[in-house]
Amino acid sequence: MADLISELRAGLPDGAVLTDPDLLRGHQRDEADLVPFGLPAVVVRPRTTADVVTVLRAAARAGVPVVPQGARTGLAGAANAVDGAVVLSTVAMDRIVEIDPVNRFAVVQPGVVNAALAGAVAAVGLRYPPDPGSWESSTIGGNVATNAGGMCCVKYGVTAEYVLGLEVVLASGEVLRTGRRTAKGVAGYDLTKLFVGSEGTLGVITEVTVGLRPAADAALTLIALFPTTAAAGDAVAAISSGGFAPSLLELLDQTHLRAIEALRPMGLRTDAKALLLASVDTGSRAPDDLAALEAVCASAGALEVFAATDAVEAAELLRARRLAHPAMERFAAETYPDGSGGLIIDDIAVPRTALAAMLDGIEKIAAEYALPIGVVGHAGDGNLHPNIVVDRHDPDSVARGRAAFDEIMRIGLELGGTCTGEHGVGLLKKDWLAREIGPVGMAVHRSIKAALDPGGLLNPGKIL
Amino acid sequence: MADLISELRAGLPDGAVLTDPDLLRGHQRDEADLVPFGLPAVVVRPRTTADVVTVLRAAARAGVPVVPQGARTGLAGAANAVDGAVVLSTVAMDRIVEIDPVNRFAVVQPGVVNAALAGAVAAVGLRYPPDPGSWESSTIGGNVATNAGGMCCVKYGVTAEYVLGLEVVLASGEVLRTGRRTAKGVAGYDLTKLFVGSEGTLGVITEVTVGLRPAADAALTLIALFPTTAAAGDAVAAISSGGFAPSLLELLDQTHLRAIEALRPMGLRTDAKALLLASVDTGSRAPDDLAALEAVCASAGALEVFAATDAVEAAELLRARRLAHPAMERFAAETYPDGSGGLIIDDIAVPRTALAAMLDGIEKIAAEYALPIGVVGHAGDGNLHPNIVVDRHDPDSVARGRAAFDEIMRIGLELGGTCTGEHGVGLLKKDWLAREIGPVGMAVHRSIKAALDPGGLLNPGKIL
Repeated sequence: MADLISELRAGLPDGAVLTDPDLLRGHQRDEADLVPFGLPAVVVRPRTTADVVTVLRAAARAGVPVVPQGARTGLAGAANAVDGAVVLSTVAMDRIVEIDPVNRFAVVQPGVVNAALAGAVAAVGLRYPPDPGSWESSTIGGNVATNAGGMCCVKYGVTAEYVLGLEVVLASGEVLRTGRRTAKGVAGYDLTKLFVGSEGTLGVITEVTVGLRPAADAALTLIALFPTTAAAGDAVAAISSGGFAPSLLELLDQTHLRAIEALRPMGLRTDAKALLLASVDTGSRAPDDLAALEAVCASAGALEVFAATDAVEAAELLRARRLAHPAMERFAAETYPDGSGGLIIDDIAVPRTALAAMLDGIEKIAAEYALPIGVVGHAGDGNLHPNIVVDRHDPDSVARGRAAFDEIMRIGLELGGTCTGEHGVGLLKKDWLAREIGPVGMAVHRSIKAALDPGGLLNPGKIL
Repeated sequence: MADLISELRAGLPDGAVLTDPDLLRGHQRDEADLVPFGLPAVVVRPRTTADVVTVLRAAARAGVPVVPQGARTGLAGAANAVDGAVVLSTVAMDRIVEIDPVNRFAVVQPGVVNAALAGAVAAVGLRYPPDPGSWESSTIGGNVATNAGGMCCVKYGVTAEYVLGLEVVLASGEVLRTGRRTAKGVAGYDLTKLFVGSEGTLGVITEVTVGLRPAADAALTLIALFPTTAAAGDAVAAISSGGFAPSLLELLDQTHLRAIEALRPMGLRTDAKALLLASVDTGSRAPDDLAALEAVCASAGALEVFAATDAVEAAELLRARRLAHPAMERFAAETYPDGSGGLIIDDIAVPRTALAAMLDGIEKIAAEYALPIGVVGHAGDGNLHPNIVVDRHDPDSVARGRAAFDEIMRIGLELGGTCTGEHGVGLLKKDWLAREIGPVGMAVHRSIKAALDPGGLLNPGKIL
């Protein structure tokens, strides 16, 4: 290991090789709960593709695992270190290489923060739509490695849909370029999409070419409050089967509603069992579309529908959604007043028609395991995030949380869903991936991993 | 071989195993030119996934190659038989298994014709956008295997964007299910996209789950005629960098314009060097958008802009585009009056800003090789189809056609393009794929092929 560290210091710029114990401890894990993490032997912060080649070649010669990390905002443990590994942090690869407004693409290093890219392309009248909850701090490299989602997906799709091409350093240290800069292209296997969402297990992404879109019109927004989750589910189904293309369709359950009202009173009816938040952004057509969405919510039995009449009111409504996580964190803290309350955040996607059944199932699980579970999610995609409130100081509470988490997965798969809608597999969902895709699917995964990383040194133990 | 055929007859339904010499000859090739094809030993027409398993297991035991075929409308030779192979035709797997209007997906067998699926989903108010030129006869399985494009792509994207999941029979005869029925999902490697566009080299697709969209509004359409290709290129660049989202943006060059006027006089100005055809389909906003597109074309220097005022006129304008291929075929026939005139159809995509340079390059190549070359294409995607007119009875003419074809590829790659925008690699573009993606890219392709088809029996010689 000392040899490897010397080799890294010799081959990388000053300050790029970190062995300070505090820094090593600061690079052990992402934000996932319930999963293990180790202590890296060294953290490297390359600046260039050539630096990454140096790291991977040296690690391959030494037979030492390499764990790529972005901003460590992930929620599945995909960036968690293993003991003795080289952690390869991309945060210093933060250069926007090129923005081409006519061909509508941008080329960035992986450490560019999502918000920095979004801001830079907005300055030339364009838009990079993917908007994971972590967008103000997470990196494009991490977004690509986990195929991050967000609130825009119901209309604009997930990260994968915006990745035109990649530069990837393979386990061997060879540099692979995938994809293209053209709008279309079908030359060979889609290696780009193979690396998107592969969570650092097949190569280290060193450059990303993303497609851009025209800036969207300012959105019009409404909230609707429902007496039952079934009624909210009906409204989502009616919206999805109608001719609508909402640019946002989010759900908050009663637990979230009450937590948000407790954190910051907004006059929301806390007797409602579910709140839907919907936006439309299609210019001059938007008012008609919003009125139609209002009517759909009313006929699905909404207690109340409130449409924002201007951008200020719309921002106010979106604030409720943005407060969901801090509100639940405060709720957890207050549920266990010794400060030991915590959240286990899950991520599941089901067909939209199964939303109400999934919400009912989660409510039953909460009762069965005697744990509060709040649900927030991207209803338009059938993608829910159950937040299980546990007492971290009580092993029994944590064990019940874990069991409730597994039970939610089980019901989700039974309803035709997938074990992860947007957070990824990492360490958290490995068992569930195997259950979801079966032995043939796992065998194909293993054969691809072996083909690209025969030594098994890239982010070992993740996904597979 | 006799043993294999007996085994296939024993394991498959009556009529599913064909050895009639005329039928074998009828399954030798797709519509690509310039590439070799062989004579299969047997053609099988499975009806079910189990039938396909039977075929692949028997072929694997016998060590005989399997070449999957759909409607054989491909243009790169990806469906061409090799001597002694089993041709696996999916045309009898033509069942629409399920249409789910609320969750917006359909499940189909691979032999379902694109137009049949489009019609079936239109009947429930939805839309399957991908519209390759062959859509009235080509199959969804073939569309997926080649990742087919079409005219809708400029707004609605290529086939890959609509494939949610697949059932694939692997070379081993094992059945792999990929993807999901949910709107979102990131569970594991994106095996779905790996098989899309893999041209039958990694497995045989036996079921496809496609995402559907709401029906689009009726489009408004204009044509604009330009005095130079550069002016048309400028208009495309201005449209692409503006806030527009045209649902169609097609280009015809002067050769096509004249060929169409000769086939069916429509009063188009044949002194124009290029025609752009543009549509918008965003409902109440469309008239404003169309007026803006008109203004953009005018300031780019259009000789004439004509906007359709109703659907009948719009259909008339689209007719010119649809006549492009028959018009060029007649032009080729008339260029060499002994009936020996033929077309070599190319497919290249460049960044939109390079359109004018690409068109100029093609014009120079036509002069240099003394061959007429007409260009039609999806200008909004930078995707052009040069049609090289050759005398099939004259080996020198065909050789010059081949040289011109290669020269077009060379210029396209130099301009930052890709060697195939939507037709695929097949046999036609193998050398150019290698030049485009380089030795590391090819090595990764070979390692994935070896991982999934270690015996090399699936569609051998294609892509790689």
